[in-house]
Amino acid sequence: MSSNMFDIIKADLADLELALQAAVKSPVDTITEIGNHLIKSGGKRLRPALYFLAAHCGQNYNRDRVMPLAVALELIHMASLVHDDVLDSATTRRGSETANAKWGNQLAILAGDYLFAKAFALVAEHNYGSRVELQLSRLLTDLSAGELIQNKEIYKASCDTEEYFERIAMKTANFLAISCQLGGDVAGLSEPEIQALYDYGYSVGMAFQLTDDLLDLTGDTKTIGKPAGNDILQGIITLPAIRALEVSPDRAELLDIVTNRNMTADMLGRALDLVKATDGIEFTKAKVDEYLTRAKEVLPASIPSEITSSYHMAADFIGGRNF
Amino acid sequence: MSSNMFDIIKADLADLELALQAAVKSPVDTITEIGNHLIKSGGKRLRPALYFLAAHCGQNYNRDRVMPLAVALELIHMASLVHDDVLDSATTRRGSETANAKWGNQLAILAGDYLFAKAFALVAEHNYGSRVELQLSRLLTDLSAGELIQNKEIYKASCDTEEYFERIAMKTANFLAISCQLGGDVAGLSEPEIQALYDYGYSVGMAFQLTDDLLDLTGDTKTIGKPAGNDILQGIITLPAIRALEVSPDRAELLDIVTNRNMTADMLGRALDLVKATDGIEFTKAKVDEYLTRAKEVLPASIPSEITSSYHMAADFIGGRNF
Repeated sequence: MSSNMFDIIKADLADLELALQAAVKSPVDTITEIGNHLIKSGGKRLRPALYFLAAHCGQNYNRDRVMPLAVALELIHMASLVHDDVLDSATTRRGSETANAKWGNQLAILAGDYLFAKAFALVAEHNYGSRVELQLSRLLTDLSAGELIQNKEIYKASCDTEEYFERIAMKTANFLAISCQLGGDVAGLSEPEIQALYDYGYSVGMAFQLTDDLLDLTGDTKTIGKPAGNDILQGIITLPAIRALEVSPDRAELLDIVTNRNMTADMLGRALDLVKATDGIEFTKAKVDEYLTRAKEVLPASIPSEITSSYHMAADFIGGRNF
Repeated sequence: MSSNMFDIIKADLADLELALQAAVKSPVDTITEIGNHLIKSGGKRLRPALYFLAAHCGQNYNRDRVMPLAVALELIHMASLVHDDVLDSATTRRGSETANAKWGNQLAILAGDYLFAKAFALVAEHNYGSRVELQLSRLLTDLSAGELIQNKEIYKASCDTEEYFERIAMKTANFLAISCQLGGDVAGLSEPEIQALYDYGYSVGMAFQLTDDLLDLTGDTKTIGKPAGNDILQGIITLPAIRALEVSPDRAELLDIVTNRNMTADMLGRALDLVKATDGIEFTKAKVDEYLTRAKEVLPASIPSEITSSYHMAADFIGGRNF
């Protein structure tokens, strides 16, 4: 996350890196190597950050107690990215070589499985209780199911607005929501507070995925590390394109392109132009704003003000990403 | 498992099928479809069977209490096979189409992830406690790590006897051992009894994998559903070949073949002949016997005699597989 936005959790995030390294250390060298490569390739550590903030809401914050679950959240995220990169045959992520590019699909799939299992092992070892374990396992069933729906529907443009929101809720918003909720759980907050933290995480999660999908259409290699339109090229249809397929005067042409498995760069360029000629981008930005507004309204006065303001800054950060 | 060998757990195994179907039922149709396809494709249900037997050692056997963990064990096994078939680009398993052949690698990988997560969700839901959860997650870290070592070393013939035993312990024996142990745990047995059940499961697990590896060399399409030598063809080196590489007068020629990624059918045939000309098969059969003898010695007198005799029959069944 950006500098001094999260002073409260700076030490937590620093320790997290060491705890992640300890978690991937294995007598099997290749596991340690792949794990360390993934850790070094970076990432925003958004899920642990949201979790740490919630955990600070309680009294007697105990970092040793809080840390293993933060590690578990990030390991599940890392493992799902490793499998994602296999699915997409991606060769780079955040400027680093992907695990599948470096070690091959077979080791990447198995390393992902190992990291999932390690996450559950950590949580079991530290006796967080079945409520926490249930949240964590449901997070992963939802995440896999969301990804599965997305992959099943590629090049079909069959997704409507409602299905789109359901899909991004399963694969992203739910994960961020549960990260916040688990922090509240560990902190021993009241049920209404925990529910509010969940709602906050859900709302910023929706905004986060919507901006990701916007950036994919409007960014370029310099800003997002890949050419614009990567989702469309891979047959994944997101909100701006769904909107365009509803309102564009050229929707038949757009539909032909986005359902074509042999899409050329020219066809993709034309599809991007067609989407941008509609209100698809603005429509999506308005949804981002709705979710961010909701995220900022939902936290009750009983949450310490410095935590609430950090959460508001996180929402602003997500809203301020370039698109 | 074979008929009337497991009368004690017949009703458990029948209920297991229904419980598995309930576990894979999802609002996402594709998950339900893939899950049911995997269930219908069969399998020996060896892990739940060993677990049920151990669970029957306690007083007041409660099937509803015991069932979810049995489902979790089989789901983890199914998920690992789904990922295995992706790794091996396998098109059939036990005469049925594999998930990757039917739905593609992407959905197969995600369905496997979903099933892993569902297993942990089931266990968390039913409050088995952190000891059980820890065993289950360690089982999966070991399983993934064992598979990873195997895949990393393909076409290297770098594995010695000790490494081979370590690898099959991680990927198979440990799983069967923990299946037995968890049954003892749920039944509330004493620590020495639980340890003995673990040792039994470990020993039959080693024997089971050794016979699997033997069958791969000596079986044919009729008996094992694939041509002999499939492991060698895929670059996986097992005990009979490891032994042959140590003792064969033609070990240089054998080494050339098993490390060749472009192995022809003729070369494979020659490698099989070279292995069979040594005592590699007999050497491996002797190890199977050692483990089965150990399996039959390890259970204490406090285990109910009808359970012990079922476990002995299970050992005989494994020892009696055709090779």
